[in-house]
Amino acid sequence: MGRRFAELLRGPYGRVLRRQGLRVRVTGIATARHGLAIAPRGLDLGRCLRQVRSGGSLDRLHHGTRPATVLDFVARVPADVLLEVTALDPRRGEPAVSHVKAALARGLHVVTANKGPVAFALRPLTALARRKGRRFLYESAVMDGTPIFNLVARCLPGVRLRGFRGTLNSTTSLILSRMEEGLTARGALREAQRRGIAEADPRHDLDGWDSAVKGCALANALLGARVTPAQVRRRGIAAITPKEVRRALRARTRLRLVVRGGREDRRVRVSVGPDPESGSPKGTRSGSGPDAALVLETDLMGEIGVFERGATVDQTAYGLLSDLLEAVRRPRGKRPL
Amino acid sequence: MGRRFAELLRGPYGRVLRRQGLRVRVTGIATARHGLAIAPRGLDLGRCLRQVRSGGSLDRLHHGTRPATVLDFVARVPADVLLEVTALDPRRGEPAVSHVKAALARGLHVVTANKGPVAFALRPLTALARRKGRRFLYESAVMDGTPIFNLVARCLPGVRLRGFRGTLNSTTSLILSRMEEGLTARGALREAQRRGIAEADPRHDLDGWDSAVKGCALANALLGARVTPAQVRRRGIAAITPKEVRRALRARTRLRLVVRGGREDRRVRVSVGPDPESGSPKGTRSGSGPDAALVLETDLMGEIGVFERGATVDQTAYGLLSDLLEAVRRPRGKRPL
Repeated sequence: MGRRFAELLRGPYGRVLRRQGLRVRVTGIATARHGLAIAPRGLDLGRCLRQVRSGGSLDRLHHGTRPATVLDFVARVPADVLLEVTALDPRRGEPAVSHVKAALARGLHVVTANKGPVAFALRPLTALARRKGRRFLYESAVMDGTPIFNLVARCLPGVRLRGFRGTLNSTTSLILSRMEEGLTARGALREAQRRGIAEADPRHDLDGWDSAVKGCALANALLGARVTPAQVRRRGIAAITPKEVRRALRARTRLRLVVRGGREDRRVRVSVGPDPESGSPKGTRSGSGPDAALVLETDLMGEIGVFERGATVDQTAYGLLSDLLEAVRRPRGKRPL
Repeated sequence: MGRRFAELLRGPYGRVLRRQGLRVRVTGIATARHGLAIAPRGLDLGRCLRQVRSGGSLDRLHHGTRPATVLDFVARVPADVLLEVTALDPRRGEPAVSHVKAALARGLHVVTANKGPVAFALRPLTALARRKGRRFLYESAVMDGTPIFNLVARCLPGVRLRGFRGTLNSTTSLILSRMEEGLTARGALREAQRRGIAEADPRHDLDGWDSAVKGCALANALLGARVTPAQVRRRGIAAITPKEVRRALRARTRLRLVVRGGREDRRVRVSVGPDPESGSPKGTRSGSGPDAALVLETDLMGEIGVFERGATVDQTAYGLLSDLLEAVRRPRGKRPL
């Protein structure tokens, strides 16, 4: 993810930023398996990418004493914005939450592709950002760079959201659509893993936890809730049989793992479960692909649906670019330098 | 449409506007069959609605000499914003184009629910608005109040649209979906008319002209084109047989009337025709309803889909409210009065 963003930054993203009068200097990169480097004057992205591609380490590009931990890196890297794209522990939202918190506390804007911080700590992180006069942005936390949070914030003035429902987990969508075509659950899972859609350990997808985390991120950001994944009523697809899948098809519908959020007696509730009705709400069938789809239930504008075709790493990367542009945006009207 | 907006202005829309520190005074209303009235100090909307509901005329609420024509009304009504919701002659885009032009020339902001001005005269009208320092807004011209133009303008920074495709005509979508269930084309049309979805004269829907006008509005606004409906390659659904509909179903797809826009050798081309593939592009199946769906084909963000459930007059009215709020929006940061 981070690597792809760096590649795009050298290409189209760089052009977009320059058109807006912005020059980005990458002053530090911390990776899980390829070391880290801080260079106040800016790193040579080409060199960094060559190092990583050749299996080398970024450490040799580092200037000064090496930070002992990534958190130490976050505390020291000289920057205006932190892009947080670490692998997530979906049970705790770490280490993303700690990284975001540390960066905001230092007065950096933070852009994350992680749903964890939004699902587990949206309010404290947003409050911290406000105190510091910085932005905490997370458009790619759900459905990659597809505008969801920005759509509601920028394009639905005066509207109050009543709830949402959607199919947000591509692994289960792909598995169920392949089962519709006759594959066994196991065969479908193997294909999803072969295509790099499912994790090597797909349990969090199959048991609905991944969807629950996304549902909490949406509920917290769009419905002003304070829900965490442990509070979500959750059922996965492990128990779904080919017979049930076929029965749904005969009824001209499709089983999908659906996330729902809505207000029930003044509280926001989130649930996850296989659903023949809105697993593919009319107009949002994810067809034979892993496409994600989300329906927003509003008071003044009825139901609006958004869906994403593909869900590639490039689409997640775009969400980071979109948030980066927002974080450093000039006040309206002012011309770029 | 106008009547419904007036009703909502007395209720939820009024509350939304007040929350933003805005008070709306309706200084004039011109109708097709219920006369017109101008009242510089503001009309009593309740009284206007009672008049119209009881089949009366607004003329008796008019102050001063009566404008001879609606265009005369537009030239004289004292206002900051004109809401243009006249019935459209889809062949010429009139009288909407003339109304919009006259109002902008006078220095009014213009909000329209009409696709005509966007399909037939976007550039001159936008240029005129810019010269006058006013806004010309038309979110509800396509897919009612569903954010399309605003989504692209506000939520996809740096993105270049390559093209679009969608099912935008609810009459043909409903007819084709009913044919899938065994109805004849004629029976399906009668139902669409009974449900008030199809016009008494549905020719512009069936022959694809309505879709062509919408396609031009999208192409002009989103792809910077200068196309008019007469230039659109167009095929309607009149010739579609129940047999073709069933054949498509057996192939696990659905026939829909699809609008496509895209760049071909440096020119933007728009086409309309029945399409089994993207008539219901995966993820946008309009199911058994008349829901509209649009897929945006982008350079940096892949494909993004938006769809609308229902398509009610309230959803068109919301587009007007959304544009009205944008037209009179205070500069960022400033608190409402």
